[in-house]
This record gives sequence, C-alpha cells and structure tokens, in this order.
Amino acid sequence: MNIPSALYRPSLALLTDLYQLTMAYGYWRSGMADRQAVFQLSFRQHPFGGAFSLACGLAYAIDFLSHVRFTAEDVAYLAELTGNDGKALFPREFLGSLQELRFSCSVDAIPEGTPVFPNQPLLRVQGPLIQGQLLETALLNIINFQTLIATKAARICLAAGGQPVLEFGLRRAQGIDGALAASRAAYIGGCAATSNVLAGKLFGIPVRGTHAHSWVMAFDTELEAFEAYARAMPNNCIFLVDTYNSLAGVRRAVRVGHWLRDQGHELVGIRLDSGDFVQLGIEARTILDQAGFPEAFIVGSNDLDEHAIARLKAQGSPIGVWGIGTKLVTADNQPALGGVYKLSAVRSPGRPWQYKVKLSEDDDKTTTPGILQVRRYQTDGSFVGDTVYDTRLGIDDAARVAGSAGPTWNDLLVPVFRQGEAVYTSPAPAAIRQRAQDQLGRLPPAVTRLSDPQPYRLELEPRLAALKSRLIRRARAHAG
Amino acid sequence: MNIPSALYRPSLALLTDLYQLTMAYGYWRSGMADRQAVFQLSFRQHPFGGAFSLACGLAYAIDFLSHVRFTAEDVAYLAELTGNDGKALFPREFLGSLQELRFSCSVDAIPEGTPVFPNQPLLRVQGPLIQGQLLETALLNIINFQTLIATKAARICLAAGGQPVLEFGLRRAQGIDGALAASRAAYIGGCAATSNVLAGKLFGIPVRGTHAHSWVMAFDTELEAFEAYARAMPNNCIFLVDTYNSLAGVRRAVRVGHWLRDQGHELVGIRLDSGDFVQLGIEARTILDQAGFPEAFIVGSNDLDEHAIARLKAQGSPIGVWGIGTKLVTADNQPALGGVYKLSAVRSPGRPWQYKVKLSEDDDKTTTPGILQVRRYQTDGSFVGDTVYDTRLGIDDAARVAGSAGPTWNDLLVPVFRQGEAVYTSPAPAAIRQRAQDQLGRLPPAVTRLSDPQPYRLELEPRLAALKSRLIRRARAHAG
Repeated sequence: MNIPSALYRPSLALLTDLYQLTMAYGYWRSGMADRQAVFQLSFRQHPFGGAFSLACGLAYAIDFLSHVRFTAEDVAYLAELTGNDGKALFPREFLGSLQELRFSCSVDAIPEGTPVFPNQPLLRVQGPLIQGQLLETALLNIINFQTLIATKAARICLAAGGQPVLEFGLRRAQGIDGALAASRAAYIGGCAATSNVLAGKLFGIPVRGTHAHSWVMAFDTELEAFEAYARAMPNNCIFLVDTYNSLAGVRRAVRVGHWLRDQGHELVGIRLDSGDFVQLGIEARTILDQAGFPEAFIVGSNDLDEHAIARLKAQGSPIGVWGIGTKLVTADNQPALGGVYKLSAVRSPGRPWQYKVKLSEDDDKTTTPGILQVRRYQTDGSFVGDTVYDTRLGIDDAARVAGSAGPTWNDLLVPVFRQGEAVYTSPAPAAIRQRAQDQLGRLPPAVTRLSDPQPYRLELEPRLAALKSRLIRRARAHAG
Repeated sequence: MNIPSALYRPSLALLTDLYQLTMAYGYWRSGMADRQAVFQLSFRQHPFGGAFSLACGLAYAIDFLSHVRFTAEDVAYLAELTGNDGKALFPREFLGSLQELRFSCSVDAIPEGTPVFPNQPLLRVQGPLIQGQLLETALLNIINFQTLIATKAARICLAAGGQPVLEFGLRRAQGIDGALAASRAAYIGGCAATSNVLAGKLFGIPVRGTHAHSWVMAFDTELEAFEAYARAMPNNCIFLVDTYNSLAGVRRAVRVGHWLRDQGHELVGIRLDSGDFVQLGIEARTILDQAGFPEAFIVGSNDLDEHAIARLKAQGSPIGVWGIGTKLVTADNQPALGGVYKLSAVRSPGRPWQYKVKLSEDDDKTTTPGILQVRRYQTDGSFVGDTVYDTRLGIDDAARVAGSAGPTWNDLLVPVFRQGEAVYTSPAPAAIRQRAQDQLGRLPPAVTRLSDPQPYRLELEPRLAALKSRLIRRARAHAG
C-alpha cells in the first residue's frame, strides 16, 4: 500500500508553506530556478533526552515524491492569492510553469529502521533549486513525525525488555493521519501490534483488542458481560476487570476462564486500566495463579510511557503486556522532532559548486556545508561510531572514527531517486521493524539506556570540518 | 469542502480500535446490537492548566458520520483476522451484516467555536448500541485533537492581545492531517492566517509567507537576495534578517525598503527567527523607525507559545506579529486532550431506559449517567455558569446556576443528525472563528486568564446529581 497517495484524494503539491511558493517564483523570476542545489534534512538533538533516534518515514516520502504534481485546481487556487496591494501574488506564466513541473531530483536517504544521530543527513535532495525548495515542507512533515514516533516506540519497547507492547493510541492521536502514521512508526520502532484496524489493513500490522468498559456497562452485571463475550469470541478473551472493582473483576474473569477451558478454549488474560499496577497487579497475579491460570497474562494500560514501565518493572509489577496509547502516538513529553532541511550547496551552469552555511544568533543552528554522506563503523558487529563526510572531499581510511584495527564500515545514505526515477523499493513495515531490532542491538547498551545515556561517537571528517570553519569565518566577515 | 471524505480515499469505517469490532460482534451475537444506547463524549480536565476549552472538530465528525460505510474490501480484511487458536475472529454472517449497516443514529452536539468545560457532553450519540460503539474511536480522534488545538490557539491569541498570530506549524506537525486539521483548528481558535497552502485551499484560511534562510543562502550576498525578492514580489516583502546577523540584515532590509518605496511599493516588515526578541527587537524597531519605516512590523518566530509571548510583551518586545509553529500545532506542553466517550444509558425493546455509570479505582474516571444537555446562563451578555441536566429529568428554573434575577439561557447541544439524516449545516471556518471570538469575549476575564485562572461556574442539576449518587452506590454494592 503506497501512502500517502493511496490515502489522500487531493494532490499534495500544495502541502507546503506559502513561502516555498513565493521563493520558487523568486527563483523563476531571477533565472535561478534550474540551478543545481543540494538540500539536506537533519535534526539537531535527539528527542526525549535520549542518545539515539530511529529513522522512519522514507516510504511515505518516496510515495509523496513519486506523485507530486501541481494540478489545474492547485494553480487556479494559487492564482487567487493576492499581495498587500490586492494584486495577484503570482503571474500566470509562473503558474503555468508550475503545472508543467515534473519531479527530476536525485535523492539519497538513510533507510527506515536505522539508528540516526544529530547533524547527519537523513535525506539529501539534489536537483533544480526550485524543486528542492518546493519539497522541503512535506518532507519535513513526514520524516520529522515518523522518526519521532519510531524513536519513542523503540524507547518504550526497550523499557518493556522484550515483553510485548501494544499501541492503542488512535483515539487521542493528532488527527487521522497522525494516528495512521504513528501506528506504522510505532510498529517499526518495535511494537507488536496496534488497535488501529485501518493501520492494520494499510500496513499489514497485527491488530489486537478485546472489549471496553462500555461492554461491561451494557449488561446488568460484569459476570454476564464476561460470559457473553466468552460465548461470542472464545478465542480472543482478555477481560477488562476494572469497570467496578478490579480484584472482583479478576475473580469473575477466572470463573469465565474455567468455563472457557471446559469448552476447549483458554483465557488469554486480563487487562487493568486504572489503579496501582504494582499492588493490584500482584494480587491479580496471585488470583490467576491460584485458580490455575499461570499462563494468563496481565495487560496494563493507563497513561504509560517508557519511564512508567521501567518504574513498574523495578517495583515488581507482574504486568506482562503493555498497552500504550496517548504518550506513544503523540510523543507526549516532546511532541515534535526539530528536523530542518537546509541548502548546503548550489551551482550555476558551467561553474563549480558553491558550498553554503547558515549562521545564526543561536550557534547550534549553524549548518554543515557540502554534499554529505555518513560512514558507520562496526567492530565485531557492533556500531562504534559515525563520520559525516563530503562526497567530493572524500574520506581517508586513516581518518576513520574508531582508529582501531579492523573495523568494517558502510555508508548509510542509499540512492532513492535518480533524476526523478525511483531506484529504491521500500521493504514492508514488518521487514523494517526486523531491521530496526537488529540495528538497535548493535548500538552500545550505554547509548540506548533510557536515563543518562552515553553519547554515540560522532565525527566530522577533518577536511570537511576545516571547510566548514572557513565558510563560517567568511560568512561572519561578510555579515559584520 | 467536506473533510475528511474529500481528503481520504479509503473508507474510514475501519478507523477504529479492533475492540469496537469485537464488541460489535459480541452485541450482534448476543442479540443486543439494536438496543437503543446513548454515548456521550466529554473531557475531564482542561488542557494547559487553563480554565476554558474551545469546541472544535464537529464539521469533520459530521462528514465522517455521513460517509461511514464498511466496504467489501473492509470486510474482506476483517475476514482474514484470527484469534489465539488461529481460527477466524469474525464469522461471515456478521461481516455481511456490517457491510449492510447504515448509519441511523441521532446526534446532538455543541457547535464548534463554543467554550466548553469538563464533564459536559460535547457530543451525544443515540441509536443502536452496535453503531454507537463502532463510532467511538473516530469521533474521539477527531474531536479530541481539534478541540485541543483550537484551545491552544485561543490561549496564544489571548496572549498576543489582538496582534495577529500566524500559524506556521506544517513542517513539524504530527502527520499530514495532523497539520491540516491543526491549521483549521488554529484558525478557528483565532489565528489570522496559516503558512499551509493546502489548508488555505481546503478551508478558505488566509495564507501568508515570504522567504526562508535558503533564499538568502542561494545568493552571494544577503543584499542581492533581498533585492531579487523585492523585484520578484514587491507586494509581499517581509525580509528574514537573521541568516548572518540580524541587525545588519535589518539595515539591508531598510535599503531595499527605500528602493521599494521608489517603485510605489511598501516594505511590509522584517522577520526575526533567532536571538533575543527583546533587545534585538528594540534595536530593529529603532533602525526601522529612524529610516522612515514606522509602519513596517516585526514578525517574531522561534519556538514561541502563549507564555513566551506574554513574557516578551511584558519585557517590552516590539514584535507586532507572531509566527507560531510547533508549539501550537502539536500543543507542545500537552499534546492530547483526554476526551472519553462513555455509555450513559441503554434500553431494551419495550423496557425503560437504564442509566449507566462507570466506576473506577480512579475517582475522576466515574461518569455521569443519563441523556444529558448543557444549559448556559447569561447576564448582560456575559456567561455566568452552566448546568448539566438530564433531558428526561428536566431542569427547574429555580435550580438555575446563577440564582440571580434575570439571566437568560440557552441549551448548548443542538440536533446534528436525526435517525441518520444530517439536520445541521456547519458554518464556514471563518464564521466559526467569528463565533469563537464572540463567545470567548463573553467569559469572565478571570476564566480566560493564562495563569492561575478562576474556574467557571459548573453545576450538576440536583435531581441528576442525586441519581448519579444513587447509581454509584448501587454499582459499588454490586462490585463489592
């Protein structure tokens, strides 16, 4: 299933900031529209106080780029826009050229499910200046959010330490696609399943769910509710026990569990959705074990995140399956990844590349110039460090990050488009999830720690570092 | 433009949690599917530590309900799902009945742009139990998010005190629709315009934007960049001045401003995107004023929210237009509204209504039973308090909240669907925005204060309060 083109009816060419269009017009008017330019998408800081992030969203981005096209309806809308004098913002000739525009850039990107770090290009666009500019906003929207949620999911799954995490976030996600894209990213980040049926259908994610409080309330008694559910769906029984009183609910679940067993079925488990997950959990576990249901698991769901899971596990909570909703799909404690997309090189016809930096009053907003690649070094299958280098300046083996003997390496960005033609096929979400598990396991454990993690080793190739300093000095002198 | 049906290609019937479908099957199997049921959507606590929220999302919800339908493809997917024994979760007959299901509920709701308060039904669904259940998740997804963002926008616009607020959030919003729905809600909450061109086209929101750092970097010097922009688009000149050095940038903007004036145009303003908005702002203002551009305004944009705006204004920052992105569209400090949708009454054929409460280990999760309406009292055009009452128990004038002489009142929930037929036409977003401005102005100023607000007066009609207590006692006894 190609998303978003399979999801959205309208053309998404207008899914952009107006200033991209006013700049596009400016480039066109100034005869610069077809200059070659390089833009790079990166983030400056890991989310959640962590020391790793997990790349996600490329399949969406590829689909967006494959279908982007200004329709007649799009340019008719743009023709109506006016400036501060009430006159049209865009002349007809320019709008005609937009309608004829065809995506022709080359794109390289880091595959989904790869651990990524600050100031690394996750995606690099090379092509006509006007195109690179027009694509910025949608690419950021797609990659920022999905990378954020995949990273949050990976942290939650690490906290769960191998116990299944179910994503239940649809009802409080940020919009329809905020839910669908989050379900996909959460699965890639390590979740075992989602409650979101449409996400299950679109992305092939396993779906899970049993019943809510309203089921229990629709019957005269909780016992009748459990019995009716068991009769209807004996192969999917996890009883939500806290509608009235959790422990009384567990005892009723056990009663129905015996009935299920008589019918040749097995109680899968119970779900706690409120109260103290340590004390209640231990008492519920005892009731289940003593009644002969040691295999029935306890699902916990109530405003959990990675820190709550870690705390509950440390306190001995016997919860074995984690239902995580709001705080996962909205990345509650940091709901946006601050990814940026910056011009790093530009070339006029017949002239050499000009590398670009952007200064700022805020130092950490200064960008890295060039046409960049990321080299990742491994020793004995573990990642030991990354070097960002400029593909034209190159990289010496001597400069490699580890300095030690024998590390192997690979370059992370792979070709995705060449002159507008797709040359990369995204794996299915299940395969990306597998890749993410493997890749996260190759990071030093200190890097994936939830609290007080150690930074992963990151270097700028020395010639690139020197060039960057030179360009910053030059830009500062010019600015003064 | 009807959203989401105009936006999304696939049927959205599967935009639900799996447990809604397993419960739907359970009701169907138990012969309860067509019992009359009442579900009510409400939230328990205002977001952002505030004392008001602004209802938003109803137009989306109406469009969703008008088009919801299980397609052949949907039920084919559901037919593939299996339980823990590997056998089908849903029998064919049930899936056939889903495909034949047609929305036939009656829905009442509080119009968008109305201030709303905890434990008030924003939306009430009455109809067959199976339908009310299946619709829960999508309704929560839509209303929760848009109400959250409209409320955040209202707070930000209150902090801006009448100065225009522009919404710039697309690039860091939570998904494509997370951006589009946020742009709509932000506009309804009071924003003057958005940068999101597709949202502008879909919802008729004014769009704004000029240029980014990349425009400046694409030229050899900042001055050339400003000049080229001014030649291309003289009727839309707000120069971003911080690519290299903000104050040097302001001086270059002034130079180009003189050129613009010679051409019969006017410099609209400058934009600061980094640095100290007080000191820099004052110096920039002085440069502009002394150069003869006292009308040119200063746009500030850099990770702002309502508290930052209030602080900057208190410190004398001369910023006159606020560009707000991430923290608005993701509701940064609380990215989800905890809305719930609870069964409050159910009726078997030929029997009286049974009112329902849900107890909880967490007291504030206990729900209000009944078929509820909200009565809002006004004195001299100001809102003085609300009473939630049961439409069958009624409400006495003597019980009205204010107790004072002469207040007028109106009931907030209006008919939206009757037996599946739409009976309400949503106003255009611009009209909803107007309504929101008017309604917010009728709240006591202490209620809309950003910090330490006073709670608005909320009451439960006495007979309903007594009934609720009785049902809680009965449920507790049953639970014990």
